[in-house]
Amino acid sequence: MSKTGAEESLTWEELREMGPRERAREFEVYGRLFHVLLAQQFDRALLDELGVQATRIRHIAKSKAGMDFLRSQLSHKTAMLYFTQPSSRTFLSFHSACQMLGMKTVEVRDTATSSEIKGETQEDSIRTFSSFADVVIMRTAVGGLAEKMAWMLSHTERPIPIINAGSGKDQHPTQALLDVYTLQRSFEKRGGIDNKTVLFVGDLARGRTVRSLAQLLTNYRGVRQLFVAPPQLQIGADILELLDAAGVQYELGDDFEAMLPRADAIYMTRIQDEWDQQAGESRQLDLARYNFGVRHLKLMLPHAVLMHPLPRRQEIATEVDGDSRAVYWRQVRNGMWVRAALLARIFNCCGPIREFHGA
Amino acid sequence: MSKTGAEESLTWEELREMGPRERAREFEVYGRLFHVLLAQQFDRALLDELGVQATRIRHIAKSKAGMDFLRSQLSHKTAMLYFTQPSSRTFLSFHSACQMLGMKTVEVRDTATSSEIKGETQEDSIRTFSSFADVVIMRTAVGGLAEKMAWMLSHTERPIPIINAGSGKDQHPTQALLDVYTLQRSFEKRGGIDNKTVLFVGDLARGRTVRSLAQLLTNYRGVRQLFVAPPQLQIGADILELLDAAGVQYELGDDFEAMLPRADAIYMTRIQDEWDQQAGESRQLDLARYNFGVRHLKLMLPHAVLMHPLPRRQEIATEVDGDSRAVYWRQVRNGMWVRAALLARIFNCCGPIREFHGA
Amino acid sequence: MSKTGAEESLTWEELREMGPRERAREFEVYGRLFHVLLAQQFDRALLDELGVQATRIRHIAKSKAGMDFLRSQLSHKTAMLYFTQPSSRTFLSFHSACQMLGMKTVEVRDTATSSEIKGETQEDSIRTFSSFADVVIMRTAVGGLAEKMAWMLSHTERPIPIINAGSGKDQHPTQALLDVYTLQRSFEKRGGIDNKTVLFVGDLARGRTVRSLAQLLTNYRGVRQLFVAPPQLQIGADILELLDAAGVQYELGDDFEAMLPRADAIYMTRIQDEWDQQAGESRQLDLARYNFGVRHLKLMLPHAVLMHPLPRRQEIATEVDGDSRAVYWRQVRNGMWVRAALLARIFNCCGPIREFHGA
Repeated sequence: MSKTGAEESLTWEELREMGPRERAREFEVYGRLFHVLLAQQFDRALLDELGVQATRIRHIAKSKAGMDFLRSQLSHKTAMLYFTQPSSRTFLSFHSACQMLGMKTVEVRDTATSSEIKGETQEDSIRTFSSFADVVIMRTAVGGLAEKMAWMLSHTERPIPIINAGSGKDQHPTQALLDVYTLQRSFEKRGGIDNKTVLFVGDLARGRTVRSLAQLLTNYRGVRQLFVAPPQLQIGADILELLDAAGVQYELGDDFEAMLPRADAIYMTRIQDEWDQQAGESRQLDLARYNFGVRHLKLMLPHAVLMHPLPRRQEIATEVDGDSRAVYWRQVRNGMWVRAALLARIFNCCGPIREFHGA
Repeated sequence: MSKTGAEESLTWEELREMGPRERAREFEVYGRLFHVLLAQQFDRALLDELGVQATRIRHIAKSKAGMDFLRSQLSHKTAMLYFTQPSSRTFLSFHSACQMLGMKTVEVRDTATSSEIKGETQEDSIRTFSSFADVVIMRTAVGGLAEKMAWMLSHTERPIPIINAGSGKDQHPTQALLDVYTLQRSFEKRGGIDNKTVLFVGDLARGRTVRSLAQLLTNYRGVRQLFVAPPQLQIGADILELLDAAGVQYELGDDFEAMLPRADAIYMTRIQDEWDQQAGESRQLDLARYNFGVRHLKLMLPHAVLMHPLPRRQEIATEVDGDSRAVYWRQVRNGMWVRAALLARIFNCCGPIREFHGA
Repeated sequence: MSKTGAEESLTWEELREMGPRERAREFEVYGRLFHVLLAQQFDRALLDELGVQATRIRHIAKSKAGMDFLRSQLSHKTAMLYFTQPSSRTFLSFHSACQMLGMKTVEVRDTATSSEIKGETQEDSIRTFSSFADVVIMRTAVGGLAEKMAWMLSHTERPIPIINAGSGKDQHPTQALLDVYTLQRSFEKRGGIDNKTVLFVGDLARGRTVRSLAQLLTNYRGVRQLFVAPPQLQIGADILELLDAAGVQYELGDDFEAMLPRADAIYMTRIQDEWDQQAGESRQLDLARYNFGVRHLKLMLPHAVLMHPLPRRQEIATEVDGDSRAVYWRQVRNGMWVRAALLARIFNCCGPIREFHGA
């Protein structure tokens, strides 16, 4: 079914050595979404389609008749939530998306209590668990594990899709999806994402979400990207090369208040001090300059939106929450809608949803 | 929607300083139940209505057609069970009540594994979790937290009800509800709760359930309350003041066998030695005098009922379990029925249930 | 309802002293399955019936209409999964079987967090939990606990079935069921299990699954049993007595490669070194002689099947997984089908399933 299941397929070792774009292509399935592993799998057509579908689902979900319809769509399917790295937020979002479409769910959270202590390999363990599910949504601390399991399952009698819900430091493709969907919604009546200016603020070096979103935005025309951070935490050279290659306009800086009035979207981030090389390293930076307080509301464009992937610390003052341009709480629910759209796409029930919405 | 959401609303600090009856009034919603936080929110009309509704649900649930009807009622809703203080019993009861009406459920049990370690405030954390639910059923070790979150959510774009499933030492309103429902059922054919005599036995100083039930019983006419305990563990002066104010007849004593033959309901409780000021303090009391053994069955009125909120230790001998007047196991299931009635009330599906039951 | 609930019933102490076959008879309910506690409860008629039913369910589950039908069958029932001994595999299998038939599920995993710390007995605790369920599926480290609870619940006002999902070292009746079902499927077109040769390999002394399967196979005609193991880990004398009594042909040996070509089914097992009397004891045995490698594929009969209860360590090389005769991954899903059949039998929905399948 998947390319990697074909006879001329690559070994895991060969696949592993390729770049993310090439790997994304390998996991593509002739016009159909199967495994969801890398942000690089999403092109503009797919992003737009998922956004439209997420909005349909959101509208349908407003009524009981609509919810009952949605919950009948995948009532025959079971999702395994394999979350060995804790993440309440992402867990709840996927769990809700599954329930929205009527999927049964089953959870594996702690592998220490399981057969691994009897000497089973992780491959055998996940293959066993996958026996009881129609899709595995996987979050682990191990970079590349979701891809490896996808490759492995593609070579069995019973291949089922794997969705990467965050693996290691690098990939968390559905987080980037929800950010794109939040931008799509925010600019729905203002021509969409094309030609907008997005300002990223905070820990741009280590924030997985910023790195993914910056890349996905290259799918849109004329988007300007502004990066404001302490010099030690600026966006990585690899991302800038990628933007250069895509012909994207960008600017780096460290003066938040100067950049703020130019942005259509402001994307605040948390300092990820859990990745500090030396303990307390981040605390020596003057981070207060990169926080959003009440006084910054006046500097924002009237139609701009203020985003944050959450959890936050002091990057955004709680007094800001009441402003209608603060959309980070809405972002949380957007994750649920777009993940439901993704599941609908994987399991081919987009047609009935479109028809129900149109009726 | 809620009074506290109105423009002239109080700050959390102002609300916090008020007495429970005043706070109960603040959380009232013009004839409609929204947040369920305090036993003081229940008056006789509401208690009677919930009891009737619980009985309807119990009858309907006896058949498959009935269960399928019930499970269609709130099939579009999701309940978040936020239980950071462990309680299998209360958890299972609410979980069953939710499933009874077809609600989807999602659980948060351990916040240590979640974003709180990334420095998020508890308010942000609960607000995030609430994004995925239509009601939050909350049990925490922190007194007042359920109220605080209810107040906070009432001031957001997406207010949803909070049900207090036990917070701190003081409030556990739905436990008192199930005790009232057990009394309603027990005296169904004997004129109801009015004019009955209720005997409380054991640790009356620290038992949250006794304190709540004693208060709720002031809603009924002519109920006599007898309190039997070692002097150190007698019912608090604050409760007695409340009974005085309500004109309730009561008696204190320490002679269990003398009081027993007068009671229509005997409410046994466990010594809560986890609250001992000094370790082992409770063990110095002669507690055996407050235990119910086989020989006490002869002293009970033939129609009386023997209750216990469970878990028990040696307060009631297991040989007593087989007596038809021992209703503590039935009490457990009563909790499920009355909590289902409460959910039906909050989500406005009482009408269909009444009609189905009448048909 | 159950025999043990009748007036002339035995005490728990009397029941406990009887042999498993006598106990199995006690738990029988006049032609109806209620508690499932011991492999000895299954005779050939029941094994055959469950196998046929499991296959019907498996076929029906292939379509959405079929799944929706199945999920309507027990939509009014709730299963409690009481798993205080960790086992992801068995848990997931039962969980899936319950969901397959539309049952709601509720889990108790960790009793340490519950009321037991308040001094409640295990009997009270399980009786409380059972209040919220229609069946308790129980896995514990305590041998005999499932039977004891079944006996206890049979004597209450609200007896519900208990299914033993593994208790202590001895009984795990549904694991044996799935092995029998795998043999039934494997020999479906070759006359069934009768007259086949089954080769058991590995740790036969301590493997609970081997011991149960060897016994259940006495229900079939002309089955030869071969036992290959290091002498220290050979099958127990108690099992051999049982085979003698049933007139079963068997052979013991330690030459795997000599026995292999004669087998219709090869049942590999893991060395259970967690039961070693002295640490490292098993490591002194030459276990490599009892592993299945690629070169053994040539020695297998063309129609034979290779089984393993999983988890495996090095008993079967992963390169063997791709051979069509390796059925251990299919075994995992067989457990789900046959457990669903068992639940259908307990809750009397076999008729509708048979009719739907025939239609």
